[in-house]
Amino acid sequence: MIILGIDPGIAIMGYGIVKYIGNRFEVIDYGSITTSSKMSTAERLKKIYNELNILIEKYEPEHVAIEELFFNTNAKTAMLVGQARGVAILAAINHDKKIYEYTPLQIKQGVVGYGRAEKRQVQEMIKMILNLKEVPKPDDVADALAITICHAHSGNLKQLFEMK
Amino acid sequence: MIILGIDPGIAIMGYGIVKYIGNRFEVIDYGSITTSSKMSTAERLKKIYNELNILIEKYEPEHVAIEELFFNTNAKTAMLVGQARGVAILAAINHDKKIYEYTPLQIKQGVVGYGRAEKRQVQEMIKMILNLKEVPKPDDVADALAITICHAHSGNLKQLFEMK
Repeated sequence: MIILGIDPGIAIMGYGIVKYIGNRFEVIDYGSITTSSKMSTAERLKKIYNELNILIEKYEPEHVAIEELFFNTNAKTAMLVGQARGVAILAAINHDKKIYEYTPLQIKQGVVGYGRAEKRQVQEMIKMILNLKEVPKPDDVADALAITICHAHSGNLKQLFEMK
Repeated sequence: MIILGIDPGIAIMGYGIVKYIGNRFEVIDYGSITTSSKMSTAERLKKIYNELNILIEKYEPEHVAIEELFFNTNAKTAMLVGQARGVAILAAINHDKKIYEYTPLQIKQGVVGYGRAEKRQVQEMIKMILNLKEVPKPDDVADALAITICHAHSGNLKQLFEMK
């Protein structure tokens, strides 16, 4: 089972690709798709969409897990990030991938087992679980890897194994 | 010059396609792309993207004009509409279309000549300018046609003619 995790954003979209077999993780790739604010919104969305398409075609993940964002701040920011999230979801569905959404609370719960965990705790757990030498930077990349762990530990995956 | 106007939304995305030549408008098509809340977000975005692609390939608009939305209400709503807006912009840029964005204020200004005009006034103007028997329903469709008029009356188009 290959899982693609996505932390959506317009300037930085973090991604993580892991293989999860028999309760063990193997990290395949991780990084970020970045766009400059000097680009038009359309060009930024196109770049995100194209680069995600390339990743999906290269690694052929069975599942795509994406963070569900809630903003209690700025509706304009929510709108901008929403646009980026929209094209990310589109890239996944256009490759007939199953898409799963997790809230930040669910992600912390799934990684640390505790929804109110601090960012540092979550990052240390990611490092340990994935057997990485360092916490990947920027935070968006670590967050994307966290989503893959959350998905692997979720009922969604268990259900799937039980069905087989 | 064929203009595609889009009023972005996740449940209803209004569109209008007009030909604008020598200060005269000819309405080519208008309507809405609708998605049900029973569908997954991914399926809704895919439907919007696919149907917009079909419209763009059928009518080959030179310009795409899309409403720029500001919410002072709910960031969650902004996020949802942002996703739909993102795939609409992607459909346009993937066909190498020039994309223009207008705020609700600019649209009213461009149609009625007065930024604080009431919705009813704007709709009556659309009917008159486009020589329609009735105001198209729902509002999202009328709004999409308003955007095409706004774009036709904008400096963006004038500039273009002057450059030729």
